[in-house]
Amino acid sequence: MTNEISDDARHKNKMANRKAVQDAEVAAKTIEKGLLIVHTGKGKGKSTAAFGLLLRAIGRGLRCGVVQFGKGAWQTGERTAVERFGDQVQWHTLGEGFTWETQDRARDVAAAERAWSVARDLMADPSIRFIVLDELNISLRYDHLEIGAVLEALKARRPDQHIVVTGRNAKAELIEAADLVTEMTLVKHHFAAGVKAQEGIEF
Amino acid sequence: MTNEISDDARHKNKMANRKAVQDAEVAAKTIEKGLLIVHTGKGKGKSTAAFGLLLRAIGRGLRCGVVQFGKGAWQTGERTAVERFGDQVQWHTLGEGFTWETQDRARDVAAAERAWSVARDLMADPSIRFIVLDELNISLRYDHLEIGAVLEALKARRPDQHIVVTGRNAKAELIEAADLVTEMTLVKHHFAAGVKAQEGIEF
Repeated sequence: MTNEISDDARHKNKMANRKAVQDAEVAAKTIEKGLLIVHTGKGKGKSTAAFGLLLRAIGRGLRCGVVQFGKGAWQTGERTAVERFGDQVQWHTLGEGFTWETQDRARDVAAAERAWSVARDLMADPSIRFIVLDELNISLRYDHLEIGAVLEALKARRPDQHIVVTGRNAKAELIEAADLVTEMTLVKHHFAAGVKAQEGIEF
Repeated sequence: MTNEISDDARHKNKMANRKAVQDAEVAAKTIEKGLLIVHTGKGKGKSTAAFGLLLRAIGRGLRCGVVQFGKGAWQTGERTAVERFGDQVQWHTLGEGFTWETQDRARDVAAAERAWSVARDLMADPSIRFIVLDELNISLRYDHLEIGAVLEALKARRPDQHIVVTGRNAKAELIEAADLVTEMTLVKHHFAAGVKAQEGIEF
């Protein structure tokens, strides 16, 4: 009889099993908490995925904060777009550009400390429910900030506050402390084919 | 004399070299084109990074389109947020939910074909400069759509139109045709620790 089962029936059966597994998995998850999310790796999409999450949080009515540790004070498309939401989002671009632009370690350290101080203020603000610490990993990697102090503050986040940290080379201690870690892996990049950075895509 | 060079001077020198390399690399890139971008892999961030790019494109004033092949007709945070931009973004959620929800292959195929038809319309619209084809990879993987026809259309995109395709298991032919491919790799997921899907993060 087995070979008389139609493809459709087989498909239906397989999918019914999968739905049962899926439903059981969902039911088993009951914890709600403030997540510490890390986007790392050499691929594209670390910051953009953080801003995609920001867009989702905005849509759910959460008040949000963004602190950019790496970027200099230039206006990106995402920042312009987010201005539409007024004071629902506090956006702070506090880096001095990448370090090979500034060529001054003391200045990089001072900029990282300023940015971290703003991040601490956002974390302490009870109205702020979602925070992006963009390129914080770079400041940690170059020891512009002390990992111990940063981790202590991140671990003490409130249960109703989600924090996303981006940047290459996330430290092992940060990955250990995080709830969700994604590594963006570069498979193929158009820069290698001579394509330039274009408005609306790269900035 | 070498050991008298200060750390600061060494740092400055290293960063100056890096800046020179960086500047030369930027200058060598001259091509502008409509990019085909693929986000694949088992990790989180494929769709959210596409929506982060959408936010950037919105901020640059580009008219945009979104077609969701996988999701059922429920309202996500990102969609709610994007409504703020009125008709700058056309958002079409045309899936019937995941296939283990519908348990009906013919219905999945019909839904994929409807979504693809809308995608073709957006690609043909000269005012649309940026398109997200969310979870198209799933429709291709299950052969709900024919890869040859989809690839032909994607390759024929206009030079002023960027297209982002998301979903696990991107087909090799699509990766071959793409300009930029990122694989989102799952390092750690909070669902495994019993944390439930939370509003503002997962939806």
